[in-house]
Amino acid sequence: MHKIIDGKVVAEKVLAECGQEIESLKKAGVVPGLAVVLVGNDPASKVYVGSKVRKCSELGLYSRKIELPEDATQQEVLDVVLDLNADPQIHGILVQSPPPPQIDEDAIVRAINPAKDVDGFHPENVAKLALEDASGFVPCTPAGCMRLLKEAGVETSGAEAVVIGRSMIVGKPMALLLMSKDGNATVTVAHSRTKDLAAVCQRADIIVAAIGMPEFVTADMVKEGAVVIDVGINRVEDSSAKRGYRLVGDVAYDEVVSKCSAITPVPGGVGPMTIAMLISNTIKAARQSLA
Amino acid sequence: MHKIIDGKVVAEKVLAECGQEIESLKKAGVVPGLAVVLVGNDPASKVYVGSKVRKCSELGLYSRKIELPEDATQQEVLDVVLDLNADPQIHGILVQSPPPPQIDEDAIVRAINPAKDVDGFHPENVAKLALEDASGFVPCTPAGCMRLLKEAGVETSGAEAVVIGRSMIVGKPMALLLMSKDGNATVTVAHSRTKDLAAVCQRADIIVAAIGMPEFVTADMVKEGAVVIDVGINRVEDSSAKRGYRLVGDVAYDEVVSKCSAITPVPGGVGPMTIAMLISNTIKAARQSLA
Repeated sequence: MHKIIDGKVVAEKVLAECGQEIESLKKAGVVPGLAVVLVGNDPASKVYVGSKVRKCSELGLYSRKIELPEDATQQEVLDVVLDLNADPQIHGILVQSPPPPQIDEDAIVRAINPAKDVDGFHPENVAKLALEDASGFVPCTPAGCMRLLKEAGVETSGAEAVVIGRSMIVGKPMALLLMSKDGNATVTVAHSRTKDLAAVCQRADIIVAAIGMPEFVTADMVKEGAVVIDVGINRVEDSSAKRGYRLVGDVAYDEVVSKCSAITPVPGGVGPMTIAMLISNTIKAARQSLA
Repeated sequence: MHKIIDGKVVAEKVLAECGQEIESLKKAGVVPGLAVVLVGNDPASKVYVGSKVRKCSELGLYSRKIELPEDATQQEVLDVVLDLNADPQIHGILVQSPPPPQIDEDAIVRAINPAKDVDGFHPENVAKLALEDASGFVPCTPAGCMRLLKEAGVETSGAEAVVIGRSMIVGKPMALLLMSKDGNATVTVAHSRTKDLAAVCQRADIIVAAIGMPEFVTADMVKEGAVVIDVGINRVEDSSAKRGYRLVGDVAYDEVVSKCSAITPVPGGVGPMTIAMLISNTIKAARQSLA
């Protein structure tokens, strides 16, 4: 096992597999298609949407970017989603989060055809994850974390896993994946109300940090030889950096790295996996549309 | 706190609250109605269905028992469910589990109108539980366990809870309830693949045993002062008993009782809560049908 789990390398491997699947789908007459809906002018969202669309065209996927103005109405966004639901060229639909405040994001997610919900946030896909129904779409970030563990040769079965964070984007789906018949880990979900978080983390063979607090997990919280997956991407001020900030994870990497048996860096760990799993979900949607 | 958590007393309290709600619904022109569908001749199922229907009439709920023969087809059961979905007198539908082997139980559950799914097994209600959407129906047994904890004055927030078992009937929903913003517990889900189950249980302030193995949780697995909720109902041979067997839980009650601060007995603990929560869910369905 490599101590530093290189998310870029694993993401490339996933994308290479995707490339082969795209070829075979094209031979069957289907070009997998992803639609990305961007509402408003959030600069970070523009960057994310841009890189998703770029990755699609690199791989030969069909992709479509739909941009709506900052003052778009709920109905306008819904109409775009309903059009995409009905569009046979589109197999995956993603509405970039967060939308402007006048948009009810939950209602938009529920309007997406669950068979095209490649983000895995529609209630039908949430239920499929809990029910261990493999036809559903798993949210990209936890799916990416599971793949990183697998590629790093980490045995989850019987392991003590601690997931820090209980969001529906990462924490809960990650816990459900780890406790499933595939994962077979003994899973603890810790969060802001956990009393002795250090003690809880210390017993973990696998720590998944998804709390959005910079360098929150320190060396004293990590058992010797543990595997650490860092989902956090936080900006911290850094006057020595060109942009005035640097990116750090939820884990104090410099002090934890010497203690654990494997760790994901930030950036270059979980981050690159998210787009790869999105593409993988889109291909799955295209394949399932043939059935 | 009473050391022995008396499920009959708490269930009576829940049913008394239900009685008041039924009166107020009747004044609003609605008699809450529950339909129980029984397929086949399983003797235990007949007993369960009988006591559910009896409890309804005691409380002044409308109830309807639909019996189908052992050799009923999938379509016949589906047709009954679809009729009940459309019936304005019926607010809750329950298909008694397990049906005969020719019946696809998952497909039957998915056919129930989620707004009438008082068992809480429909994917839409599974998702609502994970998403902490209070409009959904929580499965009766874990809902009953949460109420028992509350009535016993057990503070779940910040507590270490260990749920033994990962089924969608009890283990997973119980874990989701305990880790929700209402529960705020630090939750570990343990199961057959957990390596050192005794050590995992020993750290628990609250143990919920739902594995279906008679007297599995022994005193050495329980921390001094822990709260123990026993979901198991297992028959063990007992030649001294009139029926040749006695009922025991998943917890070795006689040796655990002296160690814990509170415990549910079997029978008379979680068991009586299940029907009470079913009635409570039916009333909730009737109330929500007015909105």
